[in-house]
Amino acid sequence: MALVAAGDVIQLRSRRDRKAFHFRLEPGRRLETHKGIFEHDNVIGCSYGQEITSHLGESFFILRPSTDDLLRTIRRKSQIIFPKDVGFILLKLAIVPGKLVVEAGTGSGALTLAMAQAVGPQGHIVSYDVREDMQNLARRNLELENLTDRVTLKQRDIVEGFDETNVQSLFLDVPNPWDYLGVARAALGGGGHFGALVPTANQVIELLDGLNQEAFVYPEVLEILMRYYKTVPARMRPDDRMVGHTGYLVFARPVEFAHPKRAILDETDPDYESTNTDIDNER
Amino acid sequence: MALVAAGDVIQLRSRRDRKAFHFRLEPGRRLETHKGIFEHDNVIGCSYGQEITSHLGESFFILRPSTDDLLRTIRRKSQIIFPKDVGFILLKLAIVPGKLVVEAGTGSGALTLAMAQAVGPQGHIVSYDVREDMQNLARRNLELENLTDRVTLKQRDIVEGFDETNVQSLFLDVPNPWDYLGVARAALGGGGHFGALVPTANQVIELLDGLNQEAFVYPEVLEILMRYYKTVPARMRPDDRMVGHTGYLVFARPVEFAHPKRAILDETDPDYESTNTDIDNER
Amino acid sequence: MALVAAGDVIQLRSRRDRKAFHFRLEPGRRLETHKGIFEHDNVIGCSYGQEITSHLGESFFILRPSTDDLLRTIRRKSQIIFPKDVGFILLKLAIVPGKLVVEAGTGSGALTLAMAQAVGPQGHIVSYDVREDMQNLARRNLELENLTDRVTLKQRDIVEGFDETNVQSLFLDVPNPWDYLGVARAALGGGGHFGALVPTANQVIELLDGLNQEAFVYPEVLEILMRYYKTVPARMRPDDRMVGHTGYLVFARPVEFAHPKRAILDETDPDYESTNTDIDNER
Amino acid sequence: MALVAAGDVIQLRSRRDRKAFHFRLEPGRRLETHKGIFEHDNVIGCSYGQEITSHLGESFFILRPSTDDLLRTIRRKSQIIFPKDVGFILLKLAIVPGKLVVEAGTGSGALTLAMAQAVGPQGHIVSYDVREDMQNLARRNLELENLTDRVTLKQRDIVEGFDETNVQSLFLDVPNPWDYLGVARAALGGGGHFGALVPTANQVIELLDGLNQEAFVYPEVLEILMRYYKTVPARMRPDDRMVGHTGYLVFARPVEFAHPKRAILDETDPDYESTNTDIDNER
Repeated sequence: MALVAAGDVIQLRSRRDRKAFHFRLEPGRRLETHKGIFEHDNVIGCSYGQEITSHLGESFFILRPSTDDLLRTIRRKSQIIFPKDVGFILLKLAIVPGKLVVEAGTGSGALTLAMAQAVGPQGHIVSYDVREDMQNLARRNLELENLTDRVTLKQRDIVEGFDETNVQSLFLDVPNPWDYLGVARAALGGGGHFGALVPTANQVIELLDGLNQEAFVYPEVLEILMRYYKTVPARMRPDDRMVGHTGYLVFARPVEFAHPKRAILDETDPDYESTNTDIDNER
Repeated sequence: MALVAAGDVIQLRSRRDRKAFHFRLEPGRRLETHKGIFEHDNVIGCSYGQEITSHLGESFFILRPSTDDLLRTIRRKSQIIFPKDVGFILLKLAIVPGKLVVEAGTGSGALTLAMAQAVGPQGHIVSYDVREDMQNLARRNLELENLTDRVTLKQRDIVEGFDETNVQSLFLDVPNPWDYLGVARAALGGGGHFGALVPTANQVIELLDGLNQEAFVYPEVLEILMRYYKTVPARMRPDDRMVGHTGYLVFARPVEFAHPKRAILDETDPDYESTNTDIDNER
Repeated sequence: MALVAAGDVIQLRSRRDRKAFHFRLEPGRRLETHKGIFEHDNVIGCSYGQEITSHLGESFFILRPSTDDLLRTIRRKSQIIFPKDVGFILLKLAIVPGKLVVEAGTGSGALTLAMAQAVGPQGHIVSYDVREDMQNLARRNLELENLTDRVTLKQRDIVEGFDETNVQSLFLDVPNPWDYLGVARAALGGGGHFGALVPTANQVIELLDGLNQEAFVYPEVLEILMRYYKTVPARMRPDDRMVGHTGYLVFARPVEFAHPKRAILDETDPDYESTNTDIDNER
Repeated sequence: MALVAAGDVIQLRSRRDRKAFHFRLEPGRRLETHKGIFEHDNVIGCSYGQEITSHLGESFFILRPSTDDLLRTIRRKSQIIFPKDVGFILLKLAIVPGKLVVEAGTGSGALTLAMAQAVGPQGHIVSYDVREDMQNLARRNLELENLTDRVTLKQRDIVEGFDETNVQSLFLDVPNPWDYLGVARAALGGGGHFGALVPTANQVIELLDGLNQEAFVYPEVLEILMRYYKTVPARMRPDDRMVGHTGYLVFARPVEFAHPKRAILDETDPDYESTNTDIDNER
């Protein structure tokens, strides 16, 4: 049976309602909530999964947070990327243990945190943002998860370019990604992975236009819809309301043309509109 | 500029149409396709992103595969888990570098492969399947990606139970997951992460019923819809056809009740139907 | 230019915010609202589309209500059918001018009203509900639209059967439609149209089971998702939140078997699962 | 029991597979199919819902077509409007018995046919299209359903304007609806209903821009997704594939400004983005 240790980041989740507390255990500290007080020392040494009670008699379970939980509890000043989008971004950008990844902007650090978790201690994230307050916020969010060692925050306008070169994975979460495709292309190694998130169709259109001009190929545009269900077995049905939109995900691949004059694919080519879903992959 | 090396797994993707080849480079070998022949030695030493030509004059780009690409190119005998679902499963089960994860069944090994990538060289996946042919297929898929060291395949019926205990993350991709909730609960440490994928509403209903009886709480049921768009900037629009369904994802948390007689939440409790989307998380 | 006449049902919709008033014009009456007072006599004789001002200086447009508007403004005691579902039900049940349609239960009368509009003065709706209060509510909703002549409300439990026979279109909006398939089959003429709306997957499963036993064939199950967009041209994007679920629509056709012993289609038949989307229709 | 009569339009649908035939019964004629021959005289006088057999022994049911069936079986040269969209268009444009409706272009006549059914013998549809071949095709489709009396087809470019004025409902299904908003506004009475269907986001953006300039208010943009389910009760699940997109529906209301200089609502107004879903309707 695994015991809760000092330094662990845990989730205390109410048995009765929707309340959950998410924090790192430090000897001698206490968590004061409107549901009662929890002495960290009383939680340290408990079993994971155990039911404990606040001094007000409220019942809570000690849970290990998932990455989904981390993202939902992050301190934020801006709209953060939703877990539904984060999971797929990690797959599309091949963000695996040991990778170096570059992103801009940092924002509240939600994607930064998920990427830092995914690359592990051998990997690294470099995250650019022009705003100092956002980088400070992201730093605090990373500190709670002990992930600061894996991230370099650079407070700078990326219009000047990225310091990194030969990067395999680069993500832009900025309002005008098309303005930075040149510097993104310079930072990215050929054959790597470019991604961006934009909320409006107008931005998608402008970004697709830009990608064609900057030696990016195989563009993909998609959106992910997540539909939660009520969990009473006798009355299975989707929730009445759902998130209707967060943003459009755009992916593309940087390449070197052997014949730069000839467009790779143009609108008259029926394959121009092809997406990854239809690739005839063969091993 | 990064150069392609022997041992690299690459994707060669056609400049003109939807054809792509996915393979590991080995000196002296050749890839024979209906688009022409590629000598591995001619690809080794090229730059990533470079455009190369088959002996038939067909133009291809050398790309680094994403995890999404790997999943799409896997050899399969059964329906595999889709990338849209894989990405979110990794987040919900906290499958990060260094983790030990247990799954059943192995199937063609798609999820096994993605999990093996995500846990890195310090993590490990134990994957059970009763069918020898499936495990052989999964083994071949893992070999291509050099991931066999991170995976232990166990050919056995899980009705006998899992060998592992205190596991933090366990996933069931079997037709009748409700029959294995007892052994799953025994393998899982408290406070960890349980997940399952089932294609029908009937299975969701039966699984939700079972979770209530086996000390799993906070069930969540959801489905992920992915919508691809055409990528011509002047005519942005969703694809005419999309994948309508792959499966329902079900997640829950194993706990230890302090008061086992009292049901944690029952149908008459308005919070019973709560899902993670509505948790009031606080740091 | 069309002028607003006494007896017209109009919508007054605010120029500035989301407020709208929906009512029938009667000489001498006044509409008192927190946005100011409108004398009916001051509206009668205006042009449709004209901008008028309340005595508080608030600006409103005089609009003709659509059926969508009518459904949204109905007085209700229960969850009403959404316009997205109503439109498709009318098509599937062939509810066209002159038709006789039977429904149960009446509820707040939303579907009753839409069907009464659709069948015109030569058609008729018979609507059953066991609850007197619901039928009174529906009656008031129909009165506002001058549709009472086209509707017969019958306050009765349909377990006793419907009075009508040889009906071409019958719709059940009750929690347990499977209990009434026998009486529904008796009321329906062969080759006609049966429909039902149920909120949960469990109900769909039970209803499909029942349809197979009562000489209904070609079952169809579907749900309709409606996604609204923000309407600022420079920032086109879906609304952040949307309705995630109202109910599952189920349709089927009553027939007479020539060979009753032989099941029409069974589970082993690959065509058993066919839906209307795949019919190979030929003229 | 209702008997099949000469002149009836029926659907013969296979008991065994997905084949269906849709035609009008005329004494002395025969339907020759690869499933066998049906003499019209043998069908006339049968009961609706009856099971009949072709001379090859194939079993079919005699069904009454729904409007959904009619739309699916229409002869077409172009992409037709899908039933899911048609049903909602009829509600939003208040297309009820007795109405006069104007549309352009006619196309294959699918929407024309559904509207002609909905307005009944007292209503009328005027449908414009510049292409003679499309109007001939639409005419043949209307003839099969005996609906030609309710429709006036005008072969003309609508850039010259519509002949009709004070129309309450007008629909544009043309690639560039923004070019015809002036003539549409001239034809429409104030307070009426304008609708359009366009396949791309770019067109939506351009149309929203135009509506703002031509005294149309309360724009709404939406899309309708229809999800079919497999109908085996023991394995309820959505179909594997679904229609991902047909088009965006755009609706707006023509009005007369009392203060034309002042924009009704502009981007800085938070209500500018309001959609019908959020109207606070009051009776």
